Amino acid sequence: MRHSITGFSNPTVKFIKSLRDKKHRRREGKFLAEGLRLLTDARESGRLPEILVMAEGRDPHPLLGELEAAVLAAGGDVIETTEDILSKITGKDNPQAVCGVYAEFDTSLAGIDRDAAPIWLVAQAMRDPGNLGTMLRTADAVGAGGVILLDDCVDPFSVEAVRASMGAIFTQRLATARWEEFIDWLRGGDGQLVAASLREAVPYRGAPYAAPCFIMVGNESRGLPEAYETACDLRVTMPMKGRADSLNAAIAGAVLAYEVIASFEG
Amino acid sequence: MRHSITGFSNPTVKFIKSLRDKKHRRREGKFLAEGLRLLTDARESGRLPEILVMAEGRDPHPLLGELEAAVLAAGGDVIETTEDILSKITGKDNPQAVCGVYAEFDTSLAGIDRDAAPIWLVAQAMRDPGNLGTMLRTADAVGAGGVILLDDCVDPFSVEAVRASMGAIFTQRLATARWEEFIDWLRGGDGQLVAASLREAVPYRGAPYAAPCFIMVGNESRGLPEAYETACDLRVTMPMKGRADSLNAAIAGAVLAYEVIASFEG
Repeated sequence: MRHSITGFSNPTVKFIKSLRDKKHRRREGKFLAEGLRLLTDARESGRLPEILVMAEGRDPHPLLGELEAAVLAAGGDVIETTEDILSKITGKDNPQAVCGVYAEFDTSLAGIDRDAAPIWLVAQAMRDPGNLGTMLRTADAVGAGGVILLDDCVDPFSVEAVRASMGAIFTQRLATARWEEFIDWLRGGDGQLVAASLREAVPYRGAPYAAPCFIMVGNESRGLPEAYETACDLRVTMPMKGRADSLNAAIAGAVLAYEVIASFEG
Repeated sequence: MRHSITGFSNPTVKFIKSLRDKKHRRREGKFLAEGLRLLTDARESGRLPEILVMAEGRDPHPLLGELEAAVLAAGGDVIETTEDILSKITGKDNPQAVCGVYAEFDTSLAGIDRDAAPIWLVAQAMRDPGNLGTMLRTADAVGAGGVILLDDCVDPFSVEAVRASMGAIFTQRLATARWEEFIDWLRGGDGQLVAASLREAVPYRGAPYAAPCFIMVGNESRGLPEAYETACDLRVTMPMKGRADSLNAAIAGAVLAYEVIASFEG
């Protein structure tokens, strides 16, 4: 249905704004994505918002028209509101002219078909939403099946992570699990667990990668726990020619992932 | 000299706090770095703060003692202050227990010796301080000579960029230039300009890289201007197996840089 909202205290405005907060996302099972490009990527991946919010008096755009029609056809709500209210919802002075409320996806390990892709990314206790979104984007680029989040990661449905994913949040499988649960699941089938490491590792170029290959990166400050590295099937080293002994986690994962897909293509 | 400051309105506190703002950094030619690890990296790279600020009653730490002694020996100032004032300076509820004020470095192209390293990173109109800091960190890891910032980039001396660089701000050469200035300088000597591109490009694996190799990445939203791509000596494509047609700029630069150093080591 189509609505117009002009009051700041409207309960729908409050509801949508509350989704900027993790606690409310968890309770409602919904999340927020902003911007026509992101929402169009979502639509092209078969994901429509339950609620589409648009600024009044925005410039017409054929993609917005298509989005609006698709949401209405699917029984969703289209809300037109003022720029001020949109600013309140998005918490920005210059909000994108459109945002959408989506239902969160199934993030159980049981939903993952490991044979659906030759490569998967695994992030352990990743804390930065930009890093997590970037990993999703990289996963899309390398043709990964998805991203598995271990232990206490930042919420992948945060506005920042969704934005940094550049739409990959809508195309990549996501799973969240504790380490014990993940390693039990992994050992229940094929799957090579790989991490960059300084312990008994082989050079990352030309290492014997095997599909399905699970590339694991650790927390931004602490790296991977030693026990997790030890549990890997393959530990690889990457050149570190400077003073530092590590790369940004999303960078390390991407360099490894590109090496793995190159090795699979021989 | 050693001082103790207990008043929020102390002019030194105001001065240090003002360095969170780009305008003040430019005027003063100083910048702020936070955290014992970062300040220790700086010291080990031969960079000492002009002013070292420490929280009273912090836990003693041998690295902090060394830093303090080095700053005093070099004629710098060591300030002890309350946690509340440190919070005001850093703008954080839980500030690191130490921060330092550093003189900005020379960032002229003329200061760059292109033959000092086989690889250099070039960022055009990069807007995200985390991306820029991450590029500095990657540059350190691949043994690059430094990072050249073209056109309107985010300030590399911002607190966020300095933090994301993980100390590489102190070890990598930095230069800022307009495109015309850069391309004139580049063509005044050896140097291969390389970018990821969709235009008349060759696969990035096995491309004919040559030192000194300048790897250029573009703005996060718009990518590189067409004219900049056209001016490159080598345009390479990277596999994009998903829906998106690009990677995060810092990710693309890192994957290319690791490929270039692998090709140099043959």
